[in-house]
Amino acid sequence: MKVRGQHYRTIWPNELDPRVIQLIDQRFLPHRFVIEEVRTVDEMAAAIREMHVRGAGLIGAAAGYGMYLATFEDDLVAAAEKLKATRPTAINLAWAIERQLQAMRGRVDIEEKRRIAFSTANQIADEDAEHCRQIGQHGVELIRRISEQKGGAPVNVLTHCNAGWLAFVDHGSATAPIYAAHDGGIPVHVWVDETRPRSQGSKLTAWELGEHGVPHTVIADNAGGHLMQRGQVDAVIVGTDRTTYTGDVANKIGTYLKALAAKDNAVPFYVALPSSSFDWNIRDGLNEIPIEERGSEEVNYADGWHEGKQVEVRVTPENSAAANFGFDVTPRQLVTELITERGICQANEESILRLFPEHRGGSTASRPTKRE
Amino acid sequence: MKVRGQHYRTIWPNELDPRVIQLIDQRFLPHRFVIEEVRTVDEMAAAIREMHVRGAGLIGAAAGYGMYLATFEDDLVAAAEKLKATRPTAINLAWAIERQLQAMRGRVDIEEKRRIAFSTANQIADEDAEHCRQIGQHGVELIRRISEQKGGAPVNVLTHCNAGWLAFVDHGSATAPIYAAHDGGIPVHVWVDETRPRSQGSKLTAWELGEHGVPHTVIADNAGGHLMQRGQVDAVIVGTDRTTYTGDVANKIGTYLKALAAKDNAVPFYVALPSSSFDWNIRDGLNEIPIEERGSEEVNYADGWHEGKQVEVRVTPENSAAANFGFDVTPRQLVTELITERGICQANEESILRLFPEHRGGSTASRPTKRE
Repeated sequence: MKVRGQHYRTIWPNELDPRVIQLIDQRFLPHRFVIEEVRTVDEMAAAIREMHVRGAGLIGAAAGYGMYLATFEDDLVAAAEKLKATRPTAINLAWAIERQLQAMRGRVDIEEKRRIAFSTANQIADEDAEHCRQIGQHGVELIRRISEQKGGAPVNVLTHCNAGWLAFVDHGSATAPIYAAHDGGIPVHVWVDETRPRSQGSKLTAWELGEHGVPHTVIADNAGGHLMQRGQVDAVIVGTDRTTYTGDVANKIGTYLKALAAKDNAVPFYVALPSSSFDWNIRDGLNEIPIEERGSEEVNYADGWHEGKQVEVRVTPENSAAANFGFDVTPRQLVTELITERGICQANEESILRLFPEHRGGSTASRPTKRE
Repeated sequence: MKVRGQHYRTIWPNELDPRVIQLIDQRFLPHRFVIEEVRTVDEMAAAIREMHVRGAGLIGAAAGYGMYLATFEDDLVAAAEKLKATRPTAINLAWAIERQLQAMRGRVDIEEKRRIAFSTANQIADEDAEHCRQIGQHGVELIRRISEQKGGAPVNVLTHCNAGWLAFVDHGSATAPIYAAHDGGIPVHVWVDETRPRSQGSKLTAWELGEHGVPHTVIADNAGGHLMQRGQVDAVIVGTDRTTYTGDVANKIGTYLKALAAKDNAVPFYVALPSSSFDWNIRDGLNEIPIEERGSEEVNYADGWHEGKQVEVRVTPENSAAANFGFDVTPRQLVTELITERGICQANEESILRLFPEHRGGSTASRPTKRE
């Protein structure tokens, strides 16, 4: 999407020198827009591990390019291990690395391997962008319908965390329908949850919407319920880190609270996801999806900019304990519909498998025996 | 309650020189414990206006002592106006000033006025502390019951914002049952919502619980729903800025979201309040209670301590708009019970008026015609 009026992806090979991979270093957003040049596997591993790049789709793309950079170095297998170890829980990471190893399998000539790895990395990135674009095309119809019901008045969409283009290669998941609406002339306004403790809403979602020219307002995570009670939210659209094939949605902590408020106020609650975010093995999201506990310093501190410098300030008392749960699970009953690259479906097994029939029959013991 | 092992109130006359009123200047908590000495009406007005003191009960007590200080100056009426203008929406402010003027009415001798004003100010403070203590005595029975059900395992209470002793003269409202349980040997642990954007939970509730020795853990506002889903919250206890005589509860923004999660997970949701927080005129909280919108800078910035200094850091992009709603309304259907100084009642008109029969018949046009 756009930054300073120019189109960007989150990661791309340098046009003149494809030995260099460029990426937006997100650690300094929204206050500094930094493009990093990555030349080695070690540099790419550091970029993933230290969260210069983050978000399921983007981590996959970065790993894909990392494996391409590995073809300039000694040992593909060692490179694969190094990249895999950066964020051990990110599904897309292992998937992209495996895809690269498969593509190069059996080739001997290093030049050929390099060509294949470059083209596969570009494919991974292109597919990610294309899936998100398709999510936008399907999701924009939901916004269009609301816009028509409102006689063309701006459609107010609430979103949580960053499921924007910064988390993918382009378009984003939750933001794709919003960008498609905005670019297509449908007036839309976004309520951006700040999303403590890491403030991905304040820092990333607000920044990318602002750069692309989408009207938006940042709010405390506490405010969404009040806005829904007052009729100021027409739809909630969020992303997901993992959604079960039965429709339970794991997403950034706090998503569940917004889903409850949406239900209580008859506001539609949509989850946008590329099919790579489905977990085809887990049946019961609430009891089976493990929830990451992160370091307490994210709750004890807040970070931002002060006199031109990025500064962490201590908010809590020195002796108070803090806990930091990364995600929560929104039960399928609270989800109105899922928006995928293949279309829109309901958050239940039957509807999801109708859209993705190749996953009928499942793969593991945790799948139910009863099937359609 | 206790600070560094010693008992404090939030405001008190200096023991040796009662011309000096002392108060905890809350602006520097939790990182510095500062006691301010107030000698003039202007100083007390500044302390209220600039939020050295805040919270319904404490504002009333501060205004009471302010009117006592006024007896050392020229003009009681001018002092009353000056104090009233500090926080125009705080009900307790006007009430305490009026009570002082009434008490002194008809007296001519300034020494006599001063004696009366001093004793009235102390009475206002004592009553506030006593009402909170009584809330604790009633509320602790709810905690005791849960503790017995759990076989003595720690009772996990979640609270939002600061309805602690720092918001009153002593004990607090939501915290009173917690302190009573802790002091009475019932093991209790508190989940403290940080309460963005002003972080009263992180800064004030965590501090006062820690100083009094109550085990607690600070969490992002997003986390409470997840904890309830996982059975890690036994009860929610919050305060209120205004509760209608029909049971609708206006409280810090985000309270409604926790009430929804409590309902969804069958966790009891209690509201603790002295009767001065009831609005005996408003029937429909959601439609009639005005919700204050505060400055957007509280959302755009976070403040805390860095290298020994209190620093504000900018979190959002410079060009992003932010909105800052101060309160929300939790509909009575989501409230399990109210804990008042007279006892516990349900959040409905009949039950509330049975406890406060002197308000039967009401006072204004907005009261319903149908009565018990």
